[in-house]
Amino acid sequence: MRIAVINPNTTPSMTARIAGAAQAVAGSDTEILGRQSLCGPDAIEGPFDGALAVPGLLKAIVAAEAEGADAHVIACFDDTGLDAARAVATRPVVGIGEASFHAVTLLAHSFCVVTTLSRSAPVIEDNILRYGFDRRCRKVFASDIPVLALEDPKSGAFETISAFIEKGIAAGAEGVALGCAGMAGFARDLQARHGIPVVDGVSAAVGLAETLVRCGLLTAKTGVWSPPTRTQLLAAE
Amino acid sequence: MRIAVINPNTTPSMTARIAGAAQAVAGSDTEILGRQSLCGPDAIEGPFDGALAVPGLLKAIVAAEAEGADAHVIACFDDTGLDAARAVATRPVVGIGEASFHAVTLLAHSFCVVTTLSRSAPVIEDNILRYGFDRRCRKVFASDIPVLALEDPKSGAFETISAFIEKGIAAGAEGVALGCAGMAGFARDLQARHGIPVVDGVSAAVGLAETLVRCGLLTAKTGVWSPPTRTQLLAAE
Amino acid sequence: MRIAVINPNTTPSMTARIAGAAQAVAGSDTEILGRQSLCGPDAIEGPFDGALAVPGLLKAIVAAEAEGADAHVIACFDDTGLDAARAVATRPVVGIGEASFHAVTLLAHSFCVVTTLSRSAPVIEDNILRYGFDRRCRKVFASDIPVLALEDPKSGAFETISAFIEKGIAAGAEGVALGCAGMAGFARDLQARHGIPVVDGVSAAVGLAETLVRCGLLTAKTGVWSPPTRTQLLAAE
Amino acid sequence: MRIAVINPNTTPSMTARIAGAAQAVAGSDTEILGRQSLCGPDAIEGPFDGALAVPGLLKAIVAAEAEGADAHVIACFDDTGLDAARAVATRPVVGIGEASFHAVTLLAHSFCVVTTLSRSAPVIEDNILRYGFDRRCRKVFASDIPVLALEDPKSGAFETISAFIEKGIAAGAEGVALGCAGMAGFARDLQARHGIPVVDGVSAAVGLAETLVRCGLLTAKTGVWSPPTRTQLLAAE
Amino acid sequence: MRIAVINPNTTPSMTARIAGAAQAVAGSDTEILGRQSLCGPDAIEGPFDGALAVPGLLKAIVAAEAEGADAHVIACFDDTGLDAARAVATRPVVGIGEASFHAVTLLAHSFCVVTTLSRSAPVIEDNILRYGFDRRCRKVFASDIPVLALEDPKSGAFETISAFIEKGIAAGAEGVALGCAGMAGFARDLQARHGIPVVDGVSAAVGLAETLVRCGLLTAKTGVWSPPTRTQLLAAE
Amino acid sequence: MRIAVINPNTTPSMTARIAGAAQAVAGSDTEILGRQSLCGPDAIEGPFDGALAVPGLLKAIVAAEAEGADAHVIACFDDTGLDAARAVATRPVVGIGEASFHAVTLLAHSFCVVTTLSRSAPVIEDNILRYGFDRRCRKVFASDIPVLALEDPKSGAFETISAFIEKGIAAGAEGVALGCAGMAGFARDLQARHGIPVVDGVSAAVGLAETLVRCGLLTAKTGVWSPPTRTQLLAAE
Repeated sequence: MRIAVINPNTTPSMTARIAGAAQAVAGSDTEILGRQSLCGPDAIEGPFDGALAVPGLLKAIVAAEAEGADAHVIACFDDTGLDAARAVATRPVVGIGEASFHAVTLLAHSFCVVTTLSRSAPVIEDNILRYGFDRRCRKVFASDIPVLALEDPKSGAFETISAFIEKGIAAGAEGVALGCAGMAGFARDLQARHGIPVVDGVSAAVGLAETLVRCGLLTAKTGVWSPPTRTQLLAAE
Repeated sequence: MRIAVINPNTTPSMTARIAGAAQAVAGSDTEILGRQSLCGPDAIEGPFDGALAVPGLLKAIVAAEAEGADAHVIACFDDTGLDAARAVATRPVVGIGEASFHAVTLLAHSFCVVTTLSRSAPVIEDNILRYGFDRRCRKVFASDIPVLALEDPKSGAFETISAFIEKGIAAGAEGVALGCAGMAGFARDLQARHGIPVVDGVSAAVGLAETLVRCGLLTAKTGVWSPPTRTQLLAAE
Repeated sequence: MRIAVINPNTTPSMTARIAGAAQAVAGSDTEILGRQSLCGPDAIEGPFDGALAVPGLLKAIVAAEAEGADAHVIACFDDTGLDAARAVATRPVVGIGEASFHAVTLLAHSFCVVTTLSRSAPVIEDNILRYGFDRRCRKVFASDIPVLALEDPKSGAFETISAFIEKGIAAGAEGVALGCAGMAGFARDLQARHGIPVVDGVSAAVGLAETLVRCGLLTAKTGVWSPPTRTQLLAAE
Repeated sequence: MRIAVINPNTTPSMTARIAGAAQAVAGSDTEILGRQSLCGPDAIEGPFDGALAVPGLLKAIVAAEAEGADAHVIACFDDTGLDAARAVATRPVVGIGEASFHAVTLLAHSFCVVTTLSRSAPVIEDNILRYGFDRRCRKVFASDIPVLALEDPKSGAFETISAFIEKGIAAGAEGVALGCAGMAGFARDLQARHGIPVVDGVSAAVGLAETLVRCGLLTAKTGVWSPPTRTQLLAAE
Repeated sequence: MRIAVINPNTTPSMTARIAGAAQAVAGSDTEILGRQSLCGPDAIEGPFDGALAVPGLLKAIVAAEAEGADAHVIACFDDTGLDAARAVATRPVVGIGEASFHAVTLLAHSFCVVTTLSRSAPVIEDNILRYGFDRRCRKVFASDIPVLALEDPKSGAFETISAFIEKGIAAGAEGVALGCAGMAGFARDLQARHGIPVVDGVSAAVGLAETLVRCGLLTAKTGVWSPPTRTQLLAAE
Repeated sequence: MRIAVINPNTTPSMTARIAGAAQAVAGSDTEILGRQSLCGPDAIEGPFDGALAVPGLLKAIVAAEAEGADAHVIACFDDTGLDAARAVATRPVVGIGEASFHAVTLLAHSFCVVTTLSRSAPVIEDNILRYGFDRRCRKVFASDIPVLALEDPKSGAFETISAFIEKGIAAGAEGVALGCAGMAGFARDLQARHGIPVVDGVSAAVGLAETLVRCGLLTAKTGVWSPPTRTQLLAAE
């Protein structure tokens, strides 16, 4: 099967990194299509960036379906544009934020999130509430690491995240969701260090997308995600 | 003071109607700036339309601030783009969905919403949950009236909405929030007919915006709505 | 229009202070009727005082309607007697506690309350739960400042409240509701110092009451606030 | 031990009936003090009556302590004045509304309430939310039987209540809380007819009060129920 | 009446201690049947022990009914096997965990729990959520005292528990539920020291069981606790 | 990898059917170990059966680990023994109830469950609450089909389930979770008929288990699921 993993920002190095993380966990018969938005912000830090990333993301979803994608992963932890994407896509769509919450609650009675900027934390908290995981989440920590600094080995990002995981454990968390696609590479080492499950959303989302495809399941089209009537807007813009 | 009432769709007749409803309830020293998006969908029916309306809405917000707006009202019941608007605006922003929930809960122990299409109802339910009014809301009814038909007197929209209000009363609702900016003209007649408070969100939002301005209050800029760093995207697009 | 702002305790200096705060934010065509209970406690510190303040408050509401009040504000942060007041009044009633929660959540993703005594905090927490703002409120702080000491400039109340706001910010609050009518005079200076929205409930309630009147909205009389049949008790007592 | 069972309305026949129901279930070493308010409404139908009943109720609590009461039961299903009573009393206080919810949830996974008037139902719903039983309660039914008609065998009250219990069972309720002290006499017959637990709050509250006394437990006096400083108001009024 | 107080572990000294605590608070006409499981773990520390204790517990329930028990108390704070016990028993069943939550919320606006091991705390938190007391519970503290060490006066358990109560008070708790049947002997001394209600679940459960019996109430048998069809399994095992 | 799919009842035909459903959706490199309890009930209908199934289930888990299982699926929709299984297993454990809720909420904004007996519905409702999906679930329908009748083509089970799905759609459900492992064979045909996603928990659980294994994630062993100290009980019993 083909899973489109779409980076909703326009930074190619991050797209490549995300696609690599996805392929590493995909099944042997799964082809990962690493794609990114053609227009929009180069990083998504807060709701303004998130909103402006959506039109480009939706175009990428439509393009991926033309390439034969069987499912889509939105590789932004804020699950930016998830509702609009589910409406326009004919195939299942999984956000990496929701995927990481689903996965970590299968492994840990309570969890914490370590994300990047403090302006993103309330967006994530709102999502956690909407998805129903608020009673399981002890805390969303903002590490104040800029998204793009995650690619710089000298940024000290790994140690900073590790320190927040310690705080989460002290607050009762038994598991961690890494709150940014750019943190994908850190999950296994952090898990080894702290001895608790540390979930990378990209990996989890690929598995969930494969699951939905193998089970022959499709997004409900009878309600909020029914096909939009104004899809010409995607071309026009 | 100046309140910008921004229609996030691109239908001028609806913009005029909304501005009229706003001026009718504004204080004597309040000037209503009726504005609309310059690009985007001509109606917002569901999350796809909502997402594509946001870039045009944000530009209109920035333009309204250049005109000296003291506060903004987003005249779409889905509160489309509210978080992004609060981030980019320097002045308070009120959505008509949230405004109607705030107003109706001051007047009714429980309420119902009558909105347009069924694909919009879950968006509204998600908002009601995020704002905290879920325990007060008995039901979000989808009337299946297209947004643009609300302007057509022959559409039977008034009677259709009235019938849903009866269903709401039977379900225990003591008040009603009309779930679309285009229903603004129906509120008083529906209230007179049914004998319970019927809130138009445009009117309520104008009053809330005036309240915030008179109290000298501004949006918190220390968290999720801190100023974005990629505002150049609004011009570039 | 006429808004009755009713101090449910019997301390005239506080009544005057509250009426002044109300007039300062009211629209140019709004007349504030500053009224107080004729009998009952001289301050409301906890549920016992609150309960004994209600009969006098209800009489004051009835008297204000005889004076032509278009709406009422109950100027006690505990929203003492709000349900009974809505039942006996024919015009809208707004409590300053609820008003401040409504206002602050339009401006801040999460907020804290700084109130006076610790015995009042759970009353406020119960109200926050009933109104639906519990998921937005980080903490209700009890400052242990007696209500009547708020009028004494030498009491250090301003600095004490300011210190609790700092604690609230550390706990993630982006906004503050000042939890006592007697703190009305501190709001703007505290907002200037801390750089986050600080809401005075009296000001917010006046704006909300004006909004309801201008929108032509009335309290639901079909349910919990239907007219009482034993109003003779107000005279008899 | 001595349990004061206080009818917060001023109807002696109801006081006698309540005291009888209490004595019928009390332990052999328990003396029931059947008391009532000396002033206030003759029935409590909604929040206005409830508020005006509180001063008389509080005086009765103080008087009962002078008589050596070891605990108090407030025999109004709205739990009128419960917080104020707990503050002024030195001994435990149990409301019959809360008592019936505690008892029925030990016996039924979900329950319904059958109360008297529709204006009382939201008061009860608010209490159920505050106590935490909202997820267990399927529905609060208003039977539209006036409180005082419950004493009239010709009123058809028993059959009316029975019909609402059938509705509750259809809605999934496995148990019933009878929502008025005046319904105490119906509980056993209704339970026999419907084959599900039917709880009378007076009986349940007596058992809970005895439990607290036997366990040597007292109301927390460090928080919301700390002793009031204005108790002179009870005498003065 | 006869109340069976069943220790679901197989440690006789703890059974005796629990029965003593139960008899101390029981009414003069109540006979306590102190019973224990005939097979299963010697202490219940976490969900694995809890699950393996249930078959022996269910046999003890059936045996106690043959002895004429009018109600049952399950003397494990995790309320192990409560649903299965309610299904197989014909008489009411009360868990000491739920009993202590019911009692403490009648006495304290908010409370904390002090239990034994950290692996038990989430079990208790899950129960608190299911019963509806999550909004009243500030914290479940794990004292890391092994269950069996509670019987050893040299273990320092009393002082350890007392220190956690201090933490609970600092976190806003007005009352305490002692989270293990083995702590029954400490309740009164801890209450005297800390000046807030400290509830022992065994005592509370006996009172609740007596209440249900005196009120003539039985467990609902129409839903989740309807009689099982495979009771032969109890004998076969 | 090897996934043990464990039927916690002792009916071999159901074990075979479940294993077949699991293998049909598993990845090409996944081996399904279809196992069942060696002792316990032949069907799990309600909490009594569920409790008695757990010891045999735990033994099967331990045995499967000895066979090299990389993860476990508990094939009972009640998620019987899930906490105890997670404690005793060293590898991830997924229940089919939780798996179906995770999957359906990725595809449908709201869903319903169609289960077998009414005594099982509250068990499922409790789980849905604990997992956090209560705000997304419109209704748990009990079809009153006995578990073992699901294997009988003449039982009319398919049509009965289909009728409940229609009721769910009328109540607003956009998706369905089939509430029994024995319904696995019906999912695709029901999805085709009703045009909304219909999730079989066995299939979903296999995908989730594969996801966890591929991501290198393990169950948290620092909290509620830390290794039990009384595992000798499994052998002894």
